[in-house]
Amino acid sequence: MAFCIPAGFQFSGVHCGLKSDPQKRDLVLVTCSPASVAAGVYTENLMYAAPVELDRARTPSQDVRAVVVNSGNANACTGPKGLSDAHEMARLTAEAIQADQEQVLVMSTGIIGEYLPMSQIASGIASAASCLGNGELDWLAAAEGITTTDKGPKTAQREIVLDGKTVRILGMCKGAGMIGPRMATMLAVIATDARLTPETAQSTLQACTDASFNCISVEGHMSTNDTVLLLASGAAMDAPLERDDLNSFGSAVQEVCIELARQIADDGEGASHLINIQVSGCATEADARRIAETVAHSNLVKTGIAGADPNWGRIVSAVGYAGVPFDRDNLGLVLNGFCLFQNGAPVEFDAAVVSQSMREQRETMVELTFAEGSAAARFWTSDLTVEYVRFNSEYHT
Amino acid sequence: MAFCIPAGFQFSGVHCGLKSDPQKRDLVLVTCSPASVAAGVYTENLMYAAPVELDRARTPSQDVRAVVVNSGNANACTGPKGLSDAHEMARLTAEAIQADQEQVLVMSTGIIGEYLPMSQIASGIASAASCLGNGELDWLAAAEGITTTDKGPKTAQREIVLDGKTVRILGMCKGAGMIGPRMATMLAVIATDARLTPETAQSTLQACTDASFNCISVEGHMSTNDTVLLLASGAAMDAPLERDDLNSFGSAVQEVCIELARQIADDGEGASHLINIQVSGCATEADARRIAETVAHSNLVKTGIAGADPNWGRIVSAVGYAGVPFDRDNLGLVLNGFCLFQNGAPVEFDAAVVSQSMREQRETMVELTFAEGSAAARFWTSDLTVEYVRFNSEYHT
Repeated sequence: MAFCIPAGFQFSGVHCGLKSDPQKRDLVLVTCSPASVAAGVYTENLMYAAPVELDRARTPSQDVRAVVVNSGNANACTGPKGLSDAHEMARLTAEAIQADQEQVLVMSTGIIGEYLPMSQIASGIASAASCLGNGELDWLAAAEGITTTDKGPKTAQREIVLDGKTVRILGMCKGAGMIGPRMATMLAVIATDARLTPETAQSTLQACTDASFNCISVEGHMSTNDTVLLLASGAAMDAPLERDDLNSFGSAVQEVCIELARQIADDGEGASHLINIQVSGCATEADARRIAETVAHSNLVKTGIAGADPNWGRIVSAVGYAGVPFDRDNLGLVLNGFCLFQNGAPVEFDAAVVSQSMREQRETMVELTFAEGSAAARFWTSDLTVEYVRFNSEYHT
Repeated sequence: MAFCIPAGFQFSGVHCGLKSDPQKRDLVLVTCSPASVAAGVYTENLMYAAPVELDRARTPSQDVRAVVVNSGNANACTGPKGLSDAHEMARLTAEAIQADQEQVLVMSTGIIGEYLPMSQIASGIASAASCLGNGELDWLAAAEGITTTDKGPKTAQREIVLDGKTVRILGMCKGAGMIGPRMATMLAVIATDARLTPETAQSTLQACTDASFNCISVEGHMSTNDTVLLLASGAAMDAPLERDDLNSFGSAVQEVCIELARQIADDGEGASHLINIQVSGCATEADARRIAETVAHSNLVKTGIAGADPNWGRIVSAVGYAGVPFDRDNLGLVLNGFCLFQNGAPVEFDAAVVSQSMREQRETMVELTFAEGSAAARFWTSDLTVEYVRFNSEYHT
């Protein structure tokens, strides 16, 4: 895989001792050229972690120089000391790259409720600052360093031409459930050399997150640390993007976000299927989203798909308790292209054939159609397997 | 176990061929003396089954003679033919016991989306009507006959003296998740010889259901068939219960309902723990309920408890996304009597000792305290084990 690194960024990922395996990177630095713009979207969990509190106060911003990320410790539920540790991470990073501490954002993921080992963090930051680079391996080291129980780094990119200028969008994320023993969180960093204002960066990121990272779940447990950051160095152009160009840029960012989000759902702990739920014909997008999400959160739907069982009764009954009114006589369900339920009544089908398609395909397509309007939504989740339960119950803290 | 059968009732349970094992009863009849009062509380699922539609139209009632129940087939998602089959069940029952068909209620549980085999149902009703009785074994045959994947019959009873008259309350229920291969549903019948009006029966049943059957979940998947019926023959007294006596009666019915509801959560498919969640100190009961329910629905909390892991981070972070505002600095968590989190910060504890108590006790107590007010709520659920996933993914339809 060849990465197109946007101009104006440097990356590094090192091991500083937060993860026990010395081969595993656990501290990441992303720096950007002066006057870079940053936008952030965060968890809505009231028990939000210290770095979320810090970043939320600093974004949107037109003057960001770096993001420092640690994996292995979430710095969540750690009270005033946790917040001061997050500030210290920013201060140490600023010192190492000669910036102001207000120009640094922080992300953490890992164990909840333990204080950060600040001496390891400090040496990690010094080491990461000394090996920054803009090569593909520097990028990969960073993408690896933010992972926890992920199977590998998760990245996506787009290159588009706007007003004669080539713009690059490169994203990384981590997440495989609100994970393992006390592990948590999805984190994402999208770097671009497009020029944005803080306002357009924030509105673009919010819209793209709504259509991607807010449309996935592994088990529906909202983390304390979820953070998506968009960093725009502006190195590819002189004036900020506007109107049509901004829309084209937004579409490309959304594609990157969806590609990353799908990777998180696909990498759900123990998952054997990526479940792609498409709802259409609703009165409002919120209705469509709510139905998709209710189906995605049903353990019975998720275990049925794990078993390659075309059990439409579980899906249809989950639709019925989503809290959205609809005409039962117009409900339809298509699974992997096979129509199982139409006009509110069962359709005869060959269960063995549908089951075989579910066994053979990694992605299970669930299409639900209504006749209430023209609004639609998509949602991605993973199936629920014996391995998920084993992973989350047999490892002890 | 000795059962005190309320006066004015007869019961039977027979096998008519809906379950493949000929040793298993699958058709149940409960009859009551003329002018019995009935109240019902039903699923809120929009894909409600045919018998739910029938019963909802007929309750509350002051003139009910019988409830006919089949297990093995839910008669759900079966369209107009399903509704006419439910009416035919009522008609056949009325004919067999010499009543009007409007005096009969119907309940079904089992496979979704298949039509009832009406010839078997008809012979089952005839057979059940011919062996009605008011002995303990008749009652047990009925309680067994409504079960599907339950480990055994679930019953509870109370006897209280009101105004010098002995009143009996005897309940049965079934449910172990929205279950097995296309299986579904919780059903309950509470029989009493107290005299009630349709209005007091309905309000008593609604209040008791809210505090019991509406406070449990196995996996949070709302069935298409959930039904709780209260039948009052009035045989123990002349005038309907009022005021203080009605309140005392309501408390006793609530105890019966909670005892039955706890049995359903405890019998959750594959469950190794009954999880008892108590939330107190909230601004409103709705807030407390919402927090308790959010914790109960977290797969991470449920797998953690299955693994006897005192992982307070999973519980506290679930509280944070319940959608209820609260002061983080006043949040406290006590697990099996051990304080793990206080004033919004972790407390030092011996994880091995807490884990041992979780391993040794069938019931795990989760107490969450807030300082927003004085409202409280209780919620019961089962843990999430490898056996649950196996059961729901490895059996194919």
